[in-house]
Amino acid sequence: MGGDNGPDAVIPGAALAAKKYKKAEFLLFGRSHVIEPILDKYPDLKKRSVVHHTDDVVASDERPSIALRTGRKSSMRMAINAVAEGRADCVVSSGNTGALMATAKLVLKCLPGIHRPAIASLLPTVKGSTMMLDLGANISCDSENLVQFSILGAVYAKAVSGITRPTVGLLNVGSEDMKGHDTLREALSILSAIKFPGEFKGFVEGDDIGKGTVDVVVTDGFTGNVALKTAEGIATLFVKTLKAEFSRSLLSKLAYLISLRQFNAVRKRLDHRVYNGGLFLGLNGVCIKSHGSADAFAFSHAVIAGIKMSENGFNAIVAKEIEYLTEQESFVSVVNERVSV
Amino acid sequence: MGGDNGPDAVIPGAALAAKKYKKAEFLLFGRSHVIEPILDKYPDLKKRSVVHHTDDVVASDERPSIALRTGRKSSMRMAINAVAEGRADCVVSSGNTGALMATAKLVLKCLPGIHRPAIASLLPTVKGSTMMLDLGANISCDSENLVQFSILGAVYAKAVSGITRPTVGLLNVGSEDMKGHDTLREALSILSAIKFPGEFKGFVEGDDIGKGTVDVVVTDGFTGNVALKTAEGIATLFVKTLKAEFSRSLLSKLAYLISLRQFNAVRKRLDHRVYNGGLFLGLNGVCIKSHGSADAFAFSHAVIAGIKMSENGFNAIVAKEIEYLTEQESFVSVVNERVSV
Repeated sequence: MGGDNGPDAVIPGAALAAKKYKKAEFLLFGRSHVIEPILDKYPDLKKRSVVHHTDDVVASDERPSIALRTGRKSSMRMAINAVAEGRADCVVSSGNTGALMATAKLVLKCLPGIHRPAIASLLPTVKGSTMMLDLGANISCDSENLVQFSILGAVYAKAVSGITRPTVGLLNVGSEDMKGHDTLREALSILSAIKFPGEFKGFVEGDDIGKGTVDVVVTDGFTGNVALKTAEGIATLFVKTLKAEFSRSLLSKLAYLISLRQFNAVRKRLDHRVYNGGLFLGLNGVCIKSHGSADAFAFSHAVIAGIKMSENGFNAIVAKEIEYLTEQESFVSVVNERVSV
Repeated sequence: MGGDNGPDAVIPGAALAAKKYKKAEFLLFGRSHVIEPILDKYPDLKKRSVVHHTDDVVASDERPSIALRTGRKSSMRMAINAVAEGRADCVVSSGNTGALMATAKLVLKCLPGIHRPAIASLLPTVKGSTMMLDLGANISCDSENLVQFSILGAVYAKAVSGITRPTVGLLNVGSEDMKGHDTLREALSILSAIKFPGEFKGFVEGDDIGKGTVDVVVTDGFTGNVALKTAEGIATLFVKTLKAEFSRSLLSKLAYLISLRQFNAVRKRLDHRVYNGGLFLGLNGVCIKSHGSADAFAFSHAVIAGIKMSENGFNAIVAKEIEYLTEQESFVSVVNERVSV
């Protein structure tokens, strides 16, 4: 029921994903009198779907604490329950991000050893794509959070994106070891000492996101959120400036038409809808947040992201890696040293 | 002597600025045997320039503390001294940012009442341009720093950019009052209570930078630096993707040629060189940091930024505004309340 377009994006989006994943089955939670008529237009999806009716919906501006208390029968809560109870492999929602995270944390719990989940997303880069996390679940983070996010990101890159030896960088204001604040330098020292499922590349800077210098960019939720939205704003600036110049006169419009093929290729290459899906990493269950403004095509990519994470056993690998981390002497000694300081 | 191109960018850059500001006079600090032959090519600039020879140069990778101790005869130090001693109105350098800030702080000192200077820059937006600060001078900031940066930005927008009632926003992860961390909420409460030279718009988000929602975006130096560099990286991603698609085949190249006029207009509109010049705001003297990779055209804009700030008496207005701030009951009461909590 969530997002700007509700079932009008969710159901055709699910239908698109269903076309690609022939064995996927769908549980649809929400107002059945709204869902059913739309579902009727997608007979293939309908065959593989079960509609679970509920009247309750979490409002997009509801405070997470209120949603937790009053939303026990909400479509969001019921969908998350389905994952917790093993009736679904993953939950995908376009609804209220804060409520989704709070409910998912409460119902699914964190994976053993994970202190806090993070929101991650893939972003287009010069080289392909890069994962960034945290994008806003944790306004402030300690060094161990950042280390765990690095593991979450590296495991995703390896298990889901299929990168053999993913590179990971910590977002900072310079690449030298002395740069940034204590938390970052502490995370650097831990990540430099431990063995983990990828290659730690030290500090990276904001421009490394677009350049695709590393496969995974790790940061706290405040910085990650600002960086992500800054990137969105600059993308908008480019698109609007191009549009303005190519629609200035009849001649510019003609030039645009002649270049349509190239512009479409650029559009396809940088299409943010393909990257739709905020992945809630670190939870004991797969939960994906689709952008509120997602259309059907964008929503289908959030569904696909959830299917991929489930298929590849992401959470089981993370649990093993976190266990392995805490067994490592180098990790234990760095963390103890930190505590004793 | 600083930057990737040294006097090869600085001198032709100064010549370009000299063409625009017929009354400007130049003091050039550095190795005279390098400077003189280049200066000979710009007779108009030469007439208005005095070369001050020194062999010492601050290296681009020198630690600021070392530069402070050993660089007393460096071209950077001598140029800053000229401002401190009233022989120059502003100093412009392409050199080591950390060393420039440390030396400028030591030699010029902060304006009365200013706790810390900030680095500010104008950035292109959908609507025109927006100033962002701090871009990296202060990795962490308290609420009073952010309030002072807001005043610095607003005074610049008013006195230098000529905006009658500049709008100012604090960079955060959401626009609601409860968002973000304590420092931001504290700064919000102070800025909402006081009278200051502009209109305080509350919290803004990363995408508001490119959108140009406000005239001044205020943030700590860590977040500002990451946001600025993220923006640079995304700009690079766009440019490279466009280039790749428009050079893919003979036909694409032809499409590019046909659209050249439009592309040039876009390029001009978003040309980062026009925005070159990190303004060190809050110092008792005008100091501008040109990007290390600046060419002559970019450097000329850093010089022009310095001339404009000097001409418009920016520092005198800031000093008055800071004095006015500390006299305001609303400011004093909010700050006292904060201290007592």
